[in-house]
Amino acid sequence: HSCNMDSVSLCGGFVCIPIDVEVCILDEFHELAVNSTDILKAILLKALSPEENTHCHHGLYFQDGERRVDYVLTYPVKKLGGGRSCRQSAYLLTENAFARSLRRGPHGRGPHSHDPHNQDEHLRQNPARRAKDSSSLSSSPTINVQEDHKAFRREEFEGKLRDMGLELEKDEDAKTPGMGFVKIHAPWNVLCREAEFMKLKMPTKKVYEVKKSSGVVGKISSLVSKVLEPLHPHVEEHQPKNIKHLSHTFSREKEHLFDLSDKDYFFDSKTRSSIVSPLINRQVMQLNIVYCLLQLLYEEWANYSVFYKYQPIGLVRKYFGEKIGLYFAWLGLYTQMLIPASLVGVIVFLYGCATVDDNIPSMEICHPKNNITMCPLCDRVCSYWKLSTACGTARASHLFDNPATVFFSIFMALWAAMFMEHWKRRQMRLNYEWDLTGFEDEEVSGDHPRAEYEFRVMQKSMCKDQKSQQKVMCISQVEKLTYRDRLPAYMTNIVMMLLMIGVTFAIVFGVILYRISTKAALHMSSNPVTRNHVQLTVKTTAAIINLVVILILDEVYGAVARWLTVLEVPKTDKSFEERLIFKTFILKFFNAFTPIIYIAFFRGRLVGRPGSYLYVFESYRMEECAHGGCLMELCIQLSITMLGKQLIQNNLFEIGVPKLKKLIRYIRSKQGAFQEEERQKKLQRYETDHFLEPFAGLTPEYMEMIIQFGFVTLFVASFPLAPLFALLNNIIEIRLDAKKFVTELRRPVAARAKDIGIWYNILRGVAKVAVIINAFVISFTSDFIPRMVYQYMYSPDGSMHGFVNHTLSYFNVSHFQDGKETMDPLHLGYTVEICRYKDYREPPWSTTPYEISKEFWAVLAVRLAFVIVFQNVVMLMSDIVDWLIPDIPKDISLQIHKEKILLVDLFMKEEQGK
Amino acid sequence: HSCNMDSVSLCGGFVCIPIDVEVCILDEFHELAVNSTDILKAILLKALSPEENTHCHHGLYFQDGERRVDYVLTYPVKKLGGGRSCRQSAYLLTENAFARSLRRGPHGRGPHSHDPHNQDEHLRQNPARRAKDSSSLSSSPTINVQEDHKAFRREEFEGKLRDMGLELEKDEDAKTPGMGFVKIHAPWNVLCREAEFMKLKMPTKKVYEVKKSSGVVGKISSLVSKVLEPLHPHVEEHQPKNIKHLSHTFSREKEHLFDLSDKDYFFDSKTRSSIVSPLINRQVMQLNIVYCLLQLLYEEWANYSVFYKYQPIGLVRKYFGEKIGLYFAWLGLYTQMLIPASLVGVIVFLYGCATVDDNIPSMEICHPKNNITMCPLCDRVCSYWKLSTACGTARASHLFDNPATVFFSIFMALWAAMFMEHWKRRQMRLNYEWDLTGFEDEEVSGDHPRAEYEFRVMQKSMCKDQKSQQKVMCISQVEKLTYRDRLPAYMTNIVMMLLMIGVTFAIVFGVILYRISTKAALHMSSNPVTRNHVQLTVKTTAAIINLVVILILDEVYGAVARWLTVLEVPKTDKSFEERLIFKTFILKFFNAFTPIIYIAFFRGRLVGRPGSYLYVFESYRMEECAHGGCLMELCIQLSITMLGKQLIQNNLFEIGVPKLKKLIRYIRSKQGAFQEEERQKKLQRYETDHFLEPFAGLTPEYMEMIIQFGFVTLFVASFPLAPLFALLNNIIEIRLDAKKFVTELRRPVAARAKDIGIWYNILRGVAKVAVIINAFVISFTSDFIPRMVYQYMYSPDGSMHGFVNHTLSYFNVSHFQDGKETMDPLHLGYTVEICRYKDYREPPWSTTPYEISKEFWAVLAVRLAFVIVFQNVVMLMSDIVDWLIPDIPKDISLQIHKEKILLVDLFMKEEQGK
Repeated sequence: HSCNMDSVSLCGGFVCIPIDVEVCILDEFHELAVNSTDILKAILLKALSPEENTHCHHGLYFQDGERRVDYVLTYPVKKLGGGRSCRQSAYLLTENAFARSLRRGPHGRGPHSHDPHNQDEHLRQNPARRAKDSSSLSSSPTINVQEDHKAFRREEFEGKLRDMGLELEKDEDAKTPGMGFVKIHAPWNVLCREAEFMKLKMPTKKVYEVKKSSGVVGKISSLVSKVLEPLHPHVEEHQPKNIKHLSHTFSREKEHLFDLSDKDYFFDSKTRSSIVSPLINRQVMQLNIVYCLLQLLYEEWANYSVFYKYQPIGLVRKYFGEKIGLYFAWLGLYTQMLIPASLVGVIVFLYGCATVDDNIPSMEICHPKNNITMCPLCDRVCSYWKLSTACGTARASHLFDNPATVFFSIFMALWAAMFMEHWKRRQMRLNYEWDLTGFEDEEVSGDHPRAEYEFRVMQKSMCKDQKSQQKVMCISQVEKLTYRDRLPAYMTNIVMMLLMIGVTFAIVFGVILYRISTKAALHMSSNPVTRNHVQLTVKTTAAIINLVVILILDEVYGAVARWLTVLEVPKTDKSFEERLIFKTFILKFFNAFTPIIYIAFFRGRLVGRPGSYLYVFESYRMEECAHGGCLMELCIQLSITMLGKQLIQNNLFEIGVPKLKKLIRYIRSKQGAFQEEERQKKLQRYETDHFLEPFAGLTPEYMEMIIQFGFVTLFVASFPLAPLFALLNNIIEIRLDAKKFVTELRRPVAARAKDIGIWYNILRGVAKVAVIINAFVISFTSDFIPRMVYQYMYSPDGSMHGFVNHTLSYFNVSHFQDGKETMDPLHLGYTVEICRYKDYREPPWSTTPYEISKEFWAVLAVRLAFVIVFQNVVMLMSDIVDWLIPDIPKDISLQIHKEKILLVDLFMKEEQGK
Repeated sequence: HSCNMDSVSLCGGFVCIPIDVEVCILDEFHELAVNSTDILKAILLKALSPEENTHCHHGLYFQDGERRVDYVLTYPVKKLGGGRSCRQSAYLLTENAFARSLRRGPHGRGPHSHDPHNQDEHLRQNPARRAKDSSSLSSSPTINVQEDHKAFRREEFEGKLRDMGLELEKDEDAKTPGMGFVKIHAPWNVLCREAEFMKLKMPTKKVYEVKKSSGVVGKISSLVSKVLEPLHPHVEEHQPKNIKHLSHTFSREKEHLFDLSDKDYFFDSKTRSSIVSPLINRQVMQLNIVYCLLQLLYEEWANYSVFYKYQPIGLVRKYFGEKIGLYFAWLGLYTQMLIPASLVGVIVFLYGCATVDDNIPSMEICHPKNNITMCPLCDRVCSYWKLSTACGTARASHLFDNPATVFFSIFMALWAAMFMEHWKRRQMRLNYEWDLTGFEDEEVSGDHPRAEYEFRVMQKSMCKDQKSQQKVMCISQVEKLTYRDRLPAYMTNIVMMLLMIGVTFAIVFGVILYRISTKAALHMSSNPVTRNHVQLTVKTTAAIINLVVILILDEVYGAVARWLTVLEVPKTDKSFEERLIFKTFILKFFNAFTPIIYIAFFRGRLVGRPGSYLYVFESYRMEECAHGGCLMELCIQLSITMLGKQLIQNNLFEIGVPKLKKLIRYIRSKQGAFQEEERQKKLQRYETDHFLEPFAGLTPEYMEMIIQFGFVTLFVASFPLAPLFALLNNIIEIRLDAKKFVTELRRPVAARAKDIGIWYNILRGVAKVAVIINAFVISFTSDFIPRMVYQYMYSPDGSMHGFVNHTLSYFNVSHFQDGKETMDPLHLGYTVEICRYKDYREPPWSTTPYEISKEFWAVLAVRLAFVIVFQNVVMLMSDIVDWLIPDIPKDISLQIHKEKILLVDLFMKEEQGK
């Protein structure tokens, strides 16, 4: 069990235990939250048959068999310097600083003489550092003294817990050798007090009937719910409820309002753990206890065979808490919303397939009569070519580059706005159902300064201390870090972020160079069969290189972002999380989308013209898109990146890596001295769960989905099948995540949350950027605008006939500079005088030959006008959608109103009763 | 005293009195809130000298001299059919419907036999309707019976009030004949109960010290506050406070937390009135009582001599409540923020003035050597003219059309974002200071269905009833209006809105036609002196016509919007207000900005070219802008509209009309039978205040300011002095509004509000639209982009020399069609072969003469690109500003955190004490 940085907690906040004592107690105490099963019995009674129910009736109790265990702390006994390792040097610093402060400070209650030993112990654990630090240290002490010291500090900590009203029981003769357990029970009055502070809303005795809407709407909704019946999981809660308990903020003065007949079951498991955990400290890990609820979750949720059903969100919330419940609710809604999007996407794609034969430009290209001779694509080595050879790509382009795509990208922008609104409504409904209305987020979590922050503040104050040569402690004087303290960290952050983005650009550029150079080599070769093979090879390898680089950098960037955020020392956990998410998002976003943006907007833009092609590094020509526009290539790149990322990263990594880690853990523990198999059966639940992976937060899960959301919305104009792929992935993803949470991870502490926090803002941001990017893709990457301009401004008969001819400029072969004319002009069978190339330039016979032509400017103006119109219209429509759909569903707002009246009524009656 | 539609209230909501009884009691009861003075004594003690303080010690008491009067209801005695008028036919309908429902319904508690009389009474008041309805009525009763009936209903209502715990005292021998008064006192336990329901936060006994920030920041802020000292009003509250009371939601169980030593003064006047008024009903009017607080407000706030000072917002809130307090706080912040904006605007204007002589294009136009001959501006009657005659307008244009304007419009977009952010912070700070944190807006106001809505629902249910021929009451069956019920109203709304906008367009078009036709007439005249005079006359009269039309339509649109909203029958007061505001805003916005938008974007766009000018109505040429761009004309129109609107509408109307109304009221009351002067002195305060104007809501005040905000942001690129004018207006406006509230209006019921509601969204919308409009003004109305394009694409030496020549196209005089050549080509002294005109067209010698040239498309593309870049960059910058400035000021969030810890501490101690 490693003591990572996160576990260093200074107990700041609620019940303020003096900072300078418990710092490394957490090194010894591993808290295991044992949320005993039976609390949930009352809830599950209906869902289970009586037999199952009796089976369910087990849990952990104190020796007296009455007080339930709410939490378990573990600590190592006697086994020294074993598997533990304090790798973080910051942690060592903490130790040293504290040792120093203890030695000097007037408040240091610990036995001062023990501190050097403490330091020494850590040095033993970090032998690499020993030489460096040993000069300042005293001689090595005996193990016993050190043990005594630890025990003393442990007892002190336990005393504090008792002072707060918790009841403790030690259990040193556990089956796992080298580990002691302290079981904790929170008595009724402690639970009440804390619930009051947290302003928990609890159901009162008062019950009211929820009226069904009658009339046509009611009939339709009952019909719909009947049709959707098989999609609901077999969980009691999804049955339509006709009665609902009024909820009210818990308060001991209003005890008579609540049904306290069974005080043991009034607060459920999740609530108890979230009440106790801030009392003890930040939790380090919390274990799964496989019991009935978990079994039900396993069957009805974390199971691929129920992939077509809704999720039992209420159950998920009951077991994992609101924060994780909201994640899965969000994921579920997102997946649900993807269904119409992918349907429309498929229809748009099929429309493209159906109209490919009616498409005049591609017909003109393919028609053998229009045998247009094209100019060579590079100087000297390339030869003339026939336009009809581009027939295949032109036809394929039409699949993604047709008027339906424009409609689809407008549709998807509105879809995104719709999704946001629906999520807001869903969130509101969940808030109401979970009695979170009125609960303020900040009040509960995120207000405690982080340990690292307080440590830095203390360090700073001590530096001051040393400077002014005063012997008085002045911890209380310095209360916060100023901008001057943070400047170095901020600078590092900015520099590193820019560097990382630069690395992304560099790698993309590297891949481009790879493609250019191999293509150049390819043109040198004379064998046309090799050429075709090489071309395919180059494209495939380049895409794979891109994908691999993205996958590797994703991991690297995750680590870099975490390191940078640690460096920044944010004040609270909340700001830590937000900063981390922000940085990770920026880096991963650039990583995933830079190659795609390059293809969409830069490739084939600055290529020059025949006779004066643009070169990079003297000999390599800039890339050009195949005839038919860059949209086709964009589409290929998008699908490879998206599918590859989803298949490899999400599924392989997410399934494979945890399994591997578990295996390693298992093997390592096997190397221990005692026989595993024998004890396994006798072990307490919390002992077996010890080998599970700890819960690392929801950030990776959300991040994955947001990047996917980016793929679905940002370039959807070029790839209408993206929503379909996302949908297929997500159906698996939900069950995969569920499985991971249920079986692979330790049970996370139930965290309350009202919303999905910063993720919502990021989603909004992505949706906004998507509008602009789609506008540019349609107007610049696709040929939509040139076609429109031709049809309405230049076409002699208002049709598309002649469009291909109109987009091709003329080049007089005699204008090639010396040494640039093609070496192999012969195999066409006739002498070429005029060749054509795709660009809007003046013909050789004009007064300004090869200058950019009037048509170019006209098309450019129309393109830009389209961007303005598209962006503003779509943004306006999104705003209207936002405005039309109320944030609070009507039935919920009615119900809230009704509840309020009932509550007032209740109080009035109570009043009159007095 | 008229019974207007608003006063029909069905008492839905909080304490649900059955609907079918009190409908027209409000016809008789006029509630006057008499918030007696002395409650405020405790607060004002410090601010006043002892003498003033004793003077202050008066107030209204019951006969026993102990119970304070919190509210007064009035009703007419014996004086029948006098000044009263029930003009609203809907009101009569209400009566009928109720009469019917009473006759039929099983719940009708009123004496059934009286109902026909009741109907009859109303018919007498509406003689026009009598004939129609008389067939269904019984014979006419005597006056006495009717009086009895009224008295009976009044007593019933009074009984209800007593049931709710209020104490009443009648006072029928008041000095105003024909008026009875019922004084209401809310005893302590009623106040407590209601305060608990409203979740009022009240200060507790617990006091803590607010620490001043030390260090450099603290020193600077103390220095700043010392400098700003003379700007603060002489009111106690602005002195720096070092201690603050902890606030907590009031609850009788926690009574020990609060300082209840003087129960009479615990709830202040504003709070008492807002507690009592929902109990009684919707308030009809509330009177000013001139007392010390009002005196202080009058001296330190509603006074032009203190225009340079901050407003005493705390006092305003204490007297008028949070909603009005927030309005003045907002207005104050807006005015304050206008100071930097107008400073920068003036600097930009001065920059234009200073660089007017260095401006190469205008120099080129004015230079006598460049004697370019311009084509005639109309066919036949117009003659050639010299470019140098346009010298004056070209120079004037530069004042507003220079690079600094681009900078200024970016600045103003960011300024708007900044303003929003600052307002959010200010609002948060006020919320904190006023103990509104945690108070939910919807809980208190806006949840009661409006009377009209309930009436419509009842009407609907009765229609159903009649259809199904059942005799059973079915009011409870129909609970809401469906879309089918509302469809006609919605359709009317949409049609009327479109019609009104159409009217606006038509009028603008009419003014354009006026200008065109007079101009055409002008060109016919041969006398150049007349021409100049007429030109000036036309411009001035057109602008004045525009202004007058705007002013008239503004009033009309206000009435139309109200009528449409009444037609729509919104459910709650809140939605009524929001819909009304939305409609009024749309109409007034179009009204104010249509002429300006025409000038900015449409004038001079489609004018044709010499030889083929575009005509409307066969003979009138489309308007063209003077040489130097339309920006100058836009600027003139803007300044006239803005100044005119502000001077005439805001100041004249706002001061003049209320004074006039007061005078009329006074004269009318004089016509009454008793001698005014004699009684005036003896009259109770609420009797004198009876002649004041009732409070009509904050909508007009906000609307005025939002339209002004539109002028300041929307076209700021063309008129950098707009912020300065707005600032000057607002300095007066604040004091004017203050005066109006203090002296001209009855005291409004103190309404709680946490924010400025829909106005914030409208502000955001205007700020967003402003970005786009400014982008278009810079790129299309001003000559900024053509100058840039010339300088970087066409200029031979990279300077602006030759720009004027480049913008002028060539026209060969011989290409005039027959009958279109000018009749008066001679007075130049030489024969004209080629003349010039301002446009980008091919010269006569090109292959496609007079076609749009390549330069046109290039400039257009650059213009559009500029719009895209400008819009997105500015929006991004606004978002960054939004993101960088935290919504909650840091000191407030720290203090909130501290308060929370203290509160927890307090409870913990209390806990241990038990």
